[in-house]
Amino acid sequence: MIVTVTPNPALDVSYQVDRLRPGHTHRIGTVHERAGGKGFNVSRVLTDLGRDTIAIGPVGGVLGDSVRADLDDAGIRHALLPVSAPTRMTITVVATSAPEGEEATLFTEPGGPVADDDWRRLHDLVQSHLETAKVLVCSGSLPPGAPVDCYADLVRLGHAHAIPVLVDAGGPALRQACAAGADVVKPNAAELAEAVGGDDPVAGAELLRAEGAGAVVVSLGVDGMIAVTGDGRWRAEPPYAVAGNPTGAGDAAVAALATGLAEAQPWPQRLRAAVAWSSAAVAAPVAGSVDQTVLADVRDQVRLTNLDLTEPARPT
Amino acid sequence: MIVTVTPNPALDVSYQVDRLRPGHTHRIGTVHERAGGKGFNVSRVLTDLGRDTIAIGPVGGVLGDSVRADLDDAGIRHALLPVSAPTRMTITVVATSAPEGEEATLFTEPGGPVADDDWRRLHDLVQSHLETAKVLVCSGSLPPGAPVDCYADLVRLGHAHAIPVLVDAGGPALRQACAAGADVVKPNAAELAEAVGGDDPVAGAELLRAEGAGAVVVSLGVDGMIAVTGDGRWRAEPPYAVAGNPTGAGDAAVAALATGLAEAQPWPQRLRAAVAWSSAAVAAPVAGSVDQTVLADVRDQVRLTNLDLTEPARPT
Repeated sequence: MIVTVTPNPALDVSYQVDRLRPGHTHRIGTVHERAGGKGFNVSRVLTDLGRDTIAIGPVGGVLGDSVRADLDDAGIRHALLPVSAPTRMTITVVATSAPEGEEATLFTEPGGPVADDDWRRLHDLVQSHLETAKVLVCSGSLPPGAPVDCYADLVRLGHAHAIPVLVDAGGPALRQACAAGADVVKPNAAELAEAVGGDDPVAGAELLRAEGAGAVVVSLGVDGMIAVTGDGRWRAEPPYAVAGNPTGAGDAAVAALATGLAEAQPWPQRLRAAVAWSSAAVAAPVAGSVDQTVLADVRDQVRLTNLDLTEPARPT
Repeated sequence: MIVTVTPNPALDVSYQVDRLRPGHTHRIGTVHERAGGKGFNVSRVLTDLGRDTIAIGPVGGVLGDSVRADLDDAGIRHALLPVSAPTRMTITVVATSAPEGEEATLFTEPGGPVADDDWRRLHDLVQSHLETAKVLVCSGSLPPGAPVDCYADLVRLGHAHAIPVLVDAGGPALRQACAAGADVVKPNAAELAEAVGGDDPVAGAELLRAEGAGAVVVSLGVDGMIAVTGDGRWRAEPPYAVAGNPTGAGDAAVAALATGLAEAQPWPQRLRAAVAWSSAAVAAPVAGSVDQTVLADVRDQVRLTNLDLTEPARPT
């Protein structure tokens, strides 16, 4: 089982407009709501693809009730911690006639401050699900007032139970997770550059490994991903760009990487899967879902390059 | 007492950003939520200014609970009808560094479909509060599936109890309310033009009077308001443009007009008050509030013109 932790869940509300016009009133047709937060998206992808997972996170207030109801509706197994801080909302505005290259517009609320005692209770809740866990995934932003070492703390907790831990985060939480020995971290290029500076993702990934991370996977958007690991360094690229909604593509990649960890797959296989699942997520209209047709088509066409060889590897 | 009816309430959520940039992610600092809907705003202004009022409307779902809680917190007397359709949300994005002249950006959800039986129950609820009412105010949009004659129906209900009725709406609901003999209707210039065509607000107002409205007040934004009534025709203009948030200015005007109806004020006095309350609402940061300092300053400086005389009236 893959345990996901989402410290800062949200109710994701999606609006579709023709064009987003600042200063104007937009009358919305249909409103889509779903449980959001990166760890929840990871569990949603895993559930969609038939993998065993449980989603853990704090929820509060009326939006917390909506998050719980949506996870129930989607059949996503969960263990939610009731807290007093109300669950936040994120608004995604998709413009169907947006100018070429304009992505969705997001408004992300910060989330309510989670109390110290809540963190201890969340830690205990995670611990109670580690007996049957194969991998622990910690994913997404931290709410205001969260201890900056909370992901590092969960890394240590996982290791105390001999469970590998994957962390998808940026900023100080990423650095501390690396220092605690996170088995895999998955920054995107911007998060990596913010953490270690420079614009070479391989060099940046090496720096995070030097700080303690077991393996570093850097997502590069349409250019695919690189993995810098103790077993070697690879780059994987999708065979073609998939049109759609890139929100949640990183979460699908994390779901693939966590599955690879759980099944002790060799790294080339993990990285191919991460790129394929990510492309399939872009093709699906909402974050946390994957398009199975695209997944089947892309899976065997991902181009893999061994960065430690001069010649690119042939597609298998 | 002034009874307000809001058939399509909303939880109004306000975000402040530096600039609204389509295609980008906006991290929100503080989130403001309040009960919204035009009739609720009218009751809020009346409550703020010490007038006796009760706000009536249907509420449902978790956002309906938030609406109820906010009305309670604000000390606004209410009689809410629990319905199964969930209360909608509106998002207002205010850009603090917006280009000159750019107003707030709004996203308004349509609201859930209200059932036929709900309308009958709402009608009965309004009726139960008419014994002690001086004025009935019907304000704002109708939810999907609402009978287009529901404001006309409330006009007839008010008259059956010898209560004057003020209607603030657009579209077919406005026309039908006029035909039913609404005592006062208050379209803005765009609503009036949509209803009767043409771009002369006085001529348009005369058309609505010919259809049955007792008096027609047209709000013209920073240019003030005109009133076309059985007692005469006037224009009132603010002494200066007030900077701020124009959302809710029309509702403050309605609150003043309803007070004028309740107190049988002469029309020039009502129209001056409507312009003054409206300016004071623009100066207040959130819809449904008025800035008392601006109100006191503007009140005696509103410029009144009798449109039936060639010479403009002198300020008194």
